[in-house]
Order: sequence, then structure tokens, then C-alpha cells
Amino acid sequence: MKRLEEMIKQEGLVLSDQVLKVDSFLNHQVDPTLMWEIAYEFMDRFKDAGITRILTIEAGGIAPAMMTALRLGVPMVYARKTKSLTLNEGTISAEVYSFTKQQTSTITVAEKYLQAGERVLIIDDFLANGEAAFGLAKLVEQAGAEVAGFGIVIEKSFQPGRQKLLDAGFRVESLARIEKLEAGQATFVDRVNV
Amino acid sequence: MKRLEEMIKQEGLVLSDQVLKVDSFLNHQVDPTLMWEIAYEFMDRFKDAGITRILTIEAGGIAPAMMTALRLGVPMVYARKTKSLTLNEGTISAEVYSFTKQQTSTITVAEKYLQAGERVLIIDDFLANGEAAFGLAKLVEQAGAEVAGFGIVIEKSFQPGRQKLLDAGFRVESLARIEKLEAGQATFVDRVNV
Repeated sequence: MKRLEEMIKQEGLVLSDQVLKVDSFLNHQVDPTLMWEIAYEFMDRFKDAGITRILTIEAGGIAPAMMTALRLGVPMVYARKTKSLTLNEGTISAEVYSFTKQQTSTITVAEKYLQAGERVLIIDDFLANGEAAFGLAKLVEQAGAEVAGFGIVIEKSFQPGRQKLLDAGFRVESLARIEKLEAGQATFVDRVNV
Repeated sequence: MKRLEEMIKQEGLVLSDQVLKVDSFLNHQVDPTLMWEIAYEFMDRFKDAGITRILTIEAGGIAPAMMTALRLGVPMVYARKTKSLTLNEGTISAEVYSFTKQQTSTITVAEKYLQAGERVLIIDDFLANGEAAFGLAKLVEQAGAEVAGFGIVIEKSFQPGRQKLLDAGFRVESLARIEKLEAGQATFVDRVNV
């Protein structure tokens, strides 16, 4: 997605060869028109996939997932990272290991908002090692629902998440695929530097 | 806002005379068309207020804030409740006491996304005691910006937040105002039971 790649080039901060900071438009400050265009892309790619629900995880996934849900006309649910005082019975959980934080956390969704037979599009802001993605897929599978695919805003293609998801048989649609982060610059897969 | 009140009556769970659970459409599962209508209401009420930015707090505020930002054509920023690995320099913080959790936490925003001279609409899913609201207002004031008002989805009018904000001179627009929670039912301010 060209506009997204341009935003990454112009506004993204390459903090190291592993870390890209895009908090000017994606996961702190949020550009609403960019989110609306991102949602168009996801809708276009998944419009024939029979999606009945969108699943994401707080907080970075909520904005693109919300917009995509509006485009596709389906409900969205976001998994919680912390225990809610009012989310206590009837939940489904999965463990997610964070390489950056080096700790395992539990993600949770109420079972009534993820039901057997549904076709679920999982949306997230980033795909790196795939830990969060597999955690979300485990929630869907425990519910007896089906993962119709992953819609990823930014994929760090030099990390193993994408390949692991493909190896597990999942469809992965990433709107920007970063081949490498080097000398303050992001390079995209299958493109000359844009 | 009639449709919102109907959703609260039909789907809200009154867990006690203090706690209303609306996770079927607002802050866990999210109804995208309802969010889009909520955003219309906020746009309509604040369209002449010269809003340049929307500020909210993760995670429950993100969906309505995102939609309102798209309607008004301004950027949105959400304050973080936890320290980010990549949000380290140039931040503004405020302390927020939670009555339900009985603990104080720090909310943070990058100072470059909240600048002097801006007119900020603060959006949140709930207003109860007003602790989060005043915390967000403190961020705006520290930035040298101005709070143009508060856009609240559900106000628990029997708790003191609204009156404290009005006493401090703020404009408060709440789309559903709950007078009381009693016998499993929500009653709205200034209305016969809808």
C-alpha cells in the first residue's frame, strides 16, 4: 500500500535494525484518513472471504480493526491484555510471549463474542515474531471458529512471524512489508526504495 | 442519543448499583455502526468549537475517538497507561487514581502530539468520578493547549465526575446520562424509562 509505505519512509523512526517507531500515525497519534484507507485495503482483500467478525488485541490494533469492521459491516472484538473487573466468567485465554518485554502474558476474550462457526479476520498493527498472532489464532480455534486470515498493517518481514503463519496454513495480508531496517531507513520487500 | 440508550437498556448488564457492563457494543466487542453514529453526535455538538485534535485514553476510548477524528478531520492521540519501550523522551504525564482498582497510575502522551495552542476535544467511553477526565485535562494544560470540551459516551450521572468538570469550567457533552442503576435496570436523566 503506497501511501502507508510513504508514511513509514517520511515519519517512521528507525531506532535500531529491529525497531521501527510509527507513533505519529499508527499506534499513539493516529491518522484517521490513513486508517480509513487501510480499512479499504483490508476490505478489498477479504471481501470474498465470508468474514463474520474481526478480532484484534488492545491497544495498537483497535483503530485499524474498528475501521475495517465498519467497512465490512461486521462486529469487532479486541482481546484484553489485563484482567478486567467485569470480564470474569465465560472467557477464553491464550498465553503470549513477548520477545521485547521477555515475559509471557495472558490475552483474554469473552467466549460469547467469539463463537463456533464464525469466520474471523485477525487484524493487528504489527507482525514480527508472530507470538501475538498465534495467540489470537488460538483464541479463535478454542472457540471452534475459523481464522479466515490475518490483516497486518506493518510486517517486519526479516522476523519469522509471516513464515510461521504461512507454514501453519494461514493466509497473511500485510499492507507494508519491511525487508530491513538499516542506517535509519526502511526498505520494503519487492520494491526499489520508495 | 436514543439508539445508545436503547442499546444500554437491551444489552447493558447492571452488575450492581455502581457497575454497568456494556462490553457487547462499547468496550470489548464493538459495534462499528453505533460508533459511527456516536461520532456523528460528537461532530454535531462540537463542529463549531474549533477542534484541532482529539485526545483519549487506551483502550476503551480508542474506538469512539477514532471515529470522531475521522468525522472531524483531525488527528487523534491516545494516552498510554503503561510505559512504552519506544515512548521514552519528550513525554507529558499525569497521575490518575482509580476508585475501582484503588491505585494510582500514570498516563503519558508524547509532547509532540499535544502542542501549545491546540483546541482539544477529550473523548472517553465512561465518565464516573472524573479521575481519568481530569488526568487527560492535566495533559492538555501541561502542553499549553486548551480543553474545548469532553465528549463522553456513557456518563454515570449519580457519580461526581460531571459536576466536578462543570465546576472546573469545562464543557461536558454526554450521549447517555444514567441517573441510577437499580434492580437490574438503568434509568436515564431527564427521561421516562426508554
